[in-house]
Amino acid sequence: MMSQEIKKARKGWNIPVSKMAENTFNPIRSIVDTMKIEPHPDKPMIALSIGDPTTFGNLPMADTVEEAVIDCIRQRKYNGYAPSVGFEFARQAVADYVSTPTSQVGAKDIILASGCSGALDLCISCLAEPGQNILVPRPGFSLYKTLAESLGIHVKQYDLLPEKSWEIDLEHLESSVDEKTAAVIVCNPSNPCGSAYSKEHLFEILDTVARKKIPIIADEIYEHFVFNGQTYHSLASLSKDVPILACSGLTKRFLVPGWRLGWIVINDRHDAFSQVRTGLLKLSQRILGPNTLIQAALPEILKNTPQSFFDDTLKYLQTNADLFYQNLSDIPGLHPVMPQGAMYMMVGIDMKHFPEFKSDVDFTQKMITEQSVFCLPASCFQYPNFFRVVLTVPTDKVIEACDRIKEFCEEHFQIEDGNGFEFFAQKMKNGHINGFEANRFVEIEK
Amino acid sequence: MMSQEIKKARKGWNIPVSKMAENTFNPIRSIVDTMKIEPHPDKPMIALSIGDPTTFGNLPMADTVEEAVIDCIRQRKYNGYAPSVGFEFARQAVADYVSTPTSQVGAKDIILASGCSGALDLCISCLAEPGQNILVPRPGFSLYKTLAESLGIHVKQYDLLPEKSWEIDLEHLESSVDEKTAAVIVCNPSNPCGSAYSKEHLFEILDTVARKKIPIIADEIYEHFVFNGQTYHSLASLSKDVPILACSGLTKRFLVPGWRLGWIVINDRHDAFSQVRTGLLKLSQRILGPNTLIQAALPEILKNTPQSFFDDTLKYLQTNADLFYQNLSDIPGLHPVMPQGAMYMMVGIDMKHFPEFKSDVDFTQKMITEQSVFCLPASCFQYPNFFRVVLTVPTDKVIEACDRIKEFCEEHFQIEDGNGFEFFAQKMKNGHINGFEANRFVEIEK
Repeated sequence: MMSQEIKKARKGWNIPVSKMAENTFNPIRSIVDTMKIEPHPDKPMIALSIGDPTTFGNLPMADTVEEAVIDCIRQRKYNGYAPSVGFEFARQAVADYVSTPTSQVGAKDIILASGCSGALDLCISCLAEPGQNILVPRPGFSLYKTLAESLGIHVKQYDLLPEKSWEIDLEHLESSVDEKTAAVIVCNPSNPCGSAYSKEHLFEILDTVARKKIPIIADEIYEHFVFNGQTYHSLASLSKDVPILACSGLTKRFLVPGWRLGWIVINDRHDAFSQVRTGLLKLSQRILGPNTLIQAALPEILKNTPQSFFDDTLKYLQTNADLFYQNLSDIPGLHPVMPQGAMYMMVGIDMKHFPEFKSDVDFTQKMITEQSVFCLPASCFQYPNFFRVVLTVPTDKVIEACDRIKEFCEEHFQIEDGNGFEFFAQKMKNGHINGFEANRFVEIEK
Repeated sequence: MMSQEIKKARKGWNIPVSKMAENTFNPIRSIVDTMKIEPHPDKPMIALSIGDPTTFGNLPMADTVEEAVIDCIRQRKYNGYAPSVGFEFARQAVADYVSTPTSQVGAKDIILASGCSGALDLCISCLAEPGQNILVPRPGFSLYKTLAESLGIHVKQYDLLPEKSWEIDLEHLESSVDEKTAAVIVCNPSNPCGSAYSKEHLFEILDTVARKKIPIIADEIYEHFVFNGQTYHSLASLSKDVPILACSGLTKRFLVPGWRLGWIVINDRHDAFSQVRTGLLKLSQRILGPNTLIQAALPEILKNTPQSFFDDTLKYLQTNADLFYQNLSDIPGLHPVMPQGAMYMMVGIDMKHFPEFKSDVDFTQKMITEQSVFCLPASCFQYPNFFRVVLTVPTDKVIEACDRIKEFCEEHFQIEDGNGFEFFAQKMKNGHINGFEANRFVEIEK
């Protein structure tokens, strides 16, 4: 077929594109681009949809970071090509930053990449072959699918459990592994869920994966984003057995996503990654790594950004999480799941009570039209009947947004007669309903 | 086979890598890594091998560029995600910069990428399918091969003619096109040749390609690098017929290769690129574009870098080109081909006169050991029996390097009896031998 297509094309100037281009598919874009984004003319738009912490200007970068980069520009020593995996001293700085007493790494274990997306791309393309599959969480960050499927790698989804604060359904994970499974992606803390797993649950995940001898790609771009003074645990720090490629970067914690500075930490175990190490190095030579000015500033950025900067960000996010949770819990038909970290909260929509709307996409679209509040429909994360809000918006906008969401839901909420619904309506009067119950209602609807 | 391999792997922790990782192959690295790089202990190394104009510190960036980036950092408005194809205003700045009276483009025709390598990668993966082929120049920049073959795209080489200042062998180009040819890469001005094509030759290339209805990927990262006050012509400015994806960036002209700011200019003709435009956009979403600080500084950088900065660079390169040519032409057994642009000169080695050495690799390796002068063997560019020198080294080092190369060649040069050789030896006495004759000697040897 291809050959015929080409022959045809060559008669004129109609130029076909590769399957890779055709198959590169961003679920968020393809859903959002079909939505009618027409805010109410009398209400200024509040975008709770954007996973970019810099959008509102309320979360500025640290002064140390700004000065570190300017200093590197002024030195004029870092304009040249770096090694494709990054400057040695910059990789050492990352190694120092990510090492823990139980997971020590060195410069040789670090590969710098163009953002965490670039890091994930390298890992997926190194570990998986077209025709193989990788396991990804559902709900999950849509880029995994985008990256894998454009390379002809299949994606199999394992479930997260909203009633258990989005912990992994371990049985489902284990049963999803087949002989074509090349890697498991674990995202912790999670976009879009806002979950942050306990040490115990991380051990369970590691045990499950160890039985299957599948390497982990750990998406830990939200590392250290945990609320209530909890301690963050990287997966690698908890296992001497499971080989893990951990991906992170400056993007979220340092609030500079546009800088595109990400990294891979090669946490080898049993010397299992010896081919992978070479493979990543070779793949890195295709594009030659991230911007050298930011690379050069890494030692200063990673060592000297004050703890207070991170604490302030977390405090801000937690305040917003609390506000969202309190306010949205009181709204008829909505079921927020309280996050433990990251920058997001998922909110269940009891669709039976909103019969006008066909889907979460329809629901969130109408909320834009009527209330100028834009929440991302969780269909973008392969999880219908939820929407996601970001915790990074200015606090006064959180309050305003909750008021408008409430108005919207009250307007469209419908009580119907029937078995399950009476029960639900009673719960509603008490104001709160937890994630487990929310999920049950979602389950009924499926 | 794969399936068995997987089963095997899954018993233990030995983790295989993808064919893509295995097939990512950098010819320069794989040759240089096998060389014994042991400089003479009494002579400081002079590296004429490095295509990075910042290495020696003799070609500093423009002050305007430094200030433009610092200004963008200070504004703190450009830390967030940009659209995956780049900020609209940055794309407009590139469009203004590259537009000519005969090739007008707008922001919609520009895609920003992570360096020119990133731009080339997007173009190749968009236009060509695994199993198809792209045509690349020989000698040519090795990255084309690296990028294509890692994706399972074949590379077919068309010849450049040293006796015609590395113009394209048009018949060979035309006969190399087959029904699986997806694109032709044309590099002008050229790495590694230092050629800069005349308007007339560019028209010939366009005519040839037009007959075959194959789109061009124009690697124009050395745009405007032409000597002797010549005018540079982009391919797109000379054709209303051939659709061209032109790749360039800040790397060479602004002397900041580490910054990784490249771009694609979509020069559509006959609406042939409508699918390609969408394909490039989709592919750009995999990695999300280059560093936003540099993107934001683009308007200032592209508009306000003084002409004197570019002129000074060119003058410097041309002085070095003249020096290299004069000095190397006088050396027995070497045949430099005078460059017209870019940053390089190719030098033919008359291997028959150096019977101790098996190859250009062997020859250049021994020159390191004895003279601490490192020239890149042109086997790296699929063109044996030549080596490449860079024109960006400090002028005093050019002179010193030429002296040492002379000493080396005089030491190893051997006159033999025979037909062709007598002729050659006579020419040698006159001191100069041009590229055409050099090539004849190389041809004899093949």
